[in-house]
Amino acid sequence: MPDSVITEQLAINKDRLSRHMKQLSEYGRLGETGVCRPTLSPVEKEAFGKVAEWMEEAGMTVRLDNFGNLIGRKDGKDPDAPVVMTGSHIDSQPAGGRFDGTVGVLSSIEAVHTMSEKGIIPDRPIEVVSFCDEEGWRFGKGLFGSRGITGNLEAGELDRKDADGITRRQALREFGCDPDKIPESRFSPESIHSFLELHIEQGPLLEKADQPAGIVTGIAGPIWLTVKVKGFAGHAGTVPMAMRQDALVGASEMIVAFHEIVKEDPEGTTVGTVGELNVSGASRNVIPEEVAFTIDLRDIDLDRRNRCEELLRESFQRIAEKYHLKVDITEDQNTKPSYCSPWIQDIIDSESQALGLNAPTMMSGAFHDALVMSSLCDYGMIFVRCREGISHNPKEYASDDDLAVGAELLYRTLLRLAGDS
Amino acid sequence: MPDSVITEQLAINKDRLSRHMKQLSEYGRLGETGVCRPTLSPVEKEAFGKVAEWMEEAGMTVRLDNFGNLIGRKDGKDPDAPVVMTGSHIDSQPAGGRFDGTVGVLSSIEAVHTMSEKGIIPDRPIEVVSFCDEEGWRFGKGLFGSRGITGNLEAGELDRKDADGITRRQALREFGCDPDKIPESRFSPESIHSFLELHIEQGPLLEKADQPAGIVTGIAGPIWLTVKVKGFAGHAGTVPMAMRQDALVGASEMIVAFHEIVKEDPEGTTVGTVGELNVSGASRNVIPEEVAFTIDLRDIDLDRRNRCEELLRESFQRIAEKYHLKVDITEDQNTKPSYCSPWIQDIIDSESQALGLNAPTMMSGAFHDALVMSSLCDYGMIFVRCREGISHNPKEYASDDDLAVGAELLYRTLLRLAGDS
Repeated sequence: MPDSVITEQLAINKDRLSRHMKQLSEYGRLGETGVCRPTLSPVEKEAFGKVAEWMEEAGMTVRLDNFGNLIGRKDGKDPDAPVVMTGSHIDSQPAGGRFDGTVGVLSSIEAVHTMSEKGIIPDRPIEVVSFCDEEGWRFGKGLFGSRGITGNLEAGELDRKDADGITRRQALREFGCDPDKIPESRFSPESIHSFLELHIEQGPLLEKADQPAGIVTGIAGPIWLTVKVKGFAGHAGTVPMAMRQDALVGASEMIVAFHEIVKEDPEGTTVGTVGELNVSGASRNVIPEEVAFTIDLRDIDLDRRNRCEELLRESFQRIAEKYHLKVDITEDQNTKPSYCSPWIQDIIDSESQALGLNAPTMMSGAFHDALVMSSLCDYGMIFVRCREGISHNPKEYASDDDLAVGAELLYRTLLRLAGDS
Repeated sequence: MPDSVITEQLAINKDRLSRHMKQLSEYGRLGETGVCRPTLSPVEKEAFGKVAEWMEEAGMTVRLDNFGNLIGRKDGKDPDAPVVMTGSHIDSQPAGGRFDGTVGVLSSIEAVHTMSEKGIIPDRPIEVVSFCDEEGWRFGKGLFGSRGITGNLEAGELDRKDADGITRRQALREFGCDPDKIPESRFSPESIHSFLELHIEQGPLLEKADQPAGIVTGIAGPIWLTVKVKGFAGHAGTVPMAMRQDALVGASEMIVAFHEIVKEDPEGTTVGTVGELNVSGASRNVIPEEVAFTIDLRDIDLDRRNRCEELLRESFQRIAEKYHLKVDITEDQNTKPSYCSPWIQDIIDSESQALGLNAPTMMSGAFHDALVMSSLCDYGMIFVRCREGISHNPKEYASDDDLAVGAELLYRTLLRLAGDS
């Protein structure tokens, strides 16, 4: 069924959603199509102001919790019923795109706005959330807001510093939160009914399947490691090659080896990335003494991920010995893969069929706040097609039509989750 | 022959040299053993005062030229004969060692002092120089004093600023020089007979050979390149391995390949270093789109260096194609290697044999003021052993015995160069 037929059946307001997407992309705009919207920054604060305005227009009461999450609430018939939560995040990568999690936040607002316009009061309350610091690059650890409300923060997290030496505690305070009162912003398992997140796919599968939306079956849990390689500095002109302990040469060989290990199984869903690398005290005529780099390794199949990790550890050790280096690997994050609740998948599936869609099921290689929410409640996810699978990049693109279809699917699923008796 | 036997034959005054070394290390002392003596700084000015005093005690007349070089002159029998110049520099790295070029300046003074004590008047005049700004970090370009007197300055050099915004012109003026009169301080090729420099090795070869001093055959000219690798960013979790254009994986394979190319010939003197690497917009869950790294490639054999450069260019191109990347290589500096004058090498060699030394010949991988002086006159260099090859570091160390042997070799070579008829 062509998209044009589907869009004629839309309950949600496609034009309003498109307009909101366009307007929000101006906050932290980078070039023509990019966005730089760091977590807890003045630009995110301004964007939150605009989003809060739209939440109010949609009939919600708005609050900023002490984890830096922006939450809009639409009361249900039973004010004490557990909340159906929906949303995503509007913070971006340093040079990110306009769509990413923003589509999830604005689609959720659009869904609630549609309910309010239609005079629908659901059985259960609905809360639309824009989570704080999903991306994680500013303080080196992401999914902060969702980990906060689900009680999954680690010791010392508020003391983490950004590149300018500002702690998260300080940033939260300047943002208008009270880090001393974060326990008050936590949710208990009894207080949440379910969580639903819409996000762009960030991968190429929907485009390949020629479908505007997909049903997520589970999220591949990432393991994050930091690898420190230690050699010995020396003058680039005077130390003969045979006597060197060059940390960067060793690190480079490790990166190539890691790449080979990950792509060994051509049918496998494993992905592995070295996104950051830093040479301490770098100077072009000094042999690098210390190099640190990050590892991001993911798979929906935990056994296969563990096997890759074991292989990389063995390989790094071997390479370190070859170049007379020391290697030290620390674990920054280790998230188990998590499957979406089958009954929510079924709801999304039946609603997509009712819309005439043939939405494929698919794994998420990226993690999302939904992964964290799964520690507290049942959850589901809807993916929207994005061009060439490009994400975390100014070239990220999803069409207005596809977003409208995704938002409609979200609206219909939300009605079923929140109950429209 | 053990060093103790050699030291018994010394004409130079070992104790005085040791004392001067110790005294000068107090000027800009950093911790127990380090030195921070920036060029044209108040602390270098004070140190110049002390060095000038020792020059006068050694029988020299002293002047500060308009390039900031401190020069002591001992007249020869023929006042119009071309000068035999010797020396090095006493400015240091921000966190440097006590030895570096200082050993060259103080050994040269000791050699002239010994001549004066023995009543020796050489045929040709001898000038001992402490060159201005060999290190180059303050204004971002080094070898200033030697480039000045040989007419090798570039346009705009006096307008270069340090980190505090002070121009070199201003710094020279405050130091007591007159930058408007720099042409008066230049040397013509006819005015210089030869140049002799003693320096610590800054490498591990003399220690390995168990020899206090070595004869430099030439100075390896470095070529400095910047390599930019361009791929395509993407989400670390969602782009299948087979679809990636990861700039860091490509750059890593290039660095390993470069290392292999450079050390291919185990007998070769080629050295190659990647000292800096930067991932643009790095984030641990983003596939690197752009990586830049530096290449420092040196050899005394220009043909071999050129061959290595050719191989690295071919190899980088091949690797870029393999990973669907673009590679762009720019040249930042290209200095030709320079061989020391064979006849001066022969003099140093015969004098070292006379001293019972078995001084090995060796290339200098680091550059020195001597490299610049070679544009105007014949030159030679003597290296003194330093512990573990460590230099540009407070851990830099050369023993009093080794320095005395080096100074003796310099004294004897200087007598032959200046003529003792």
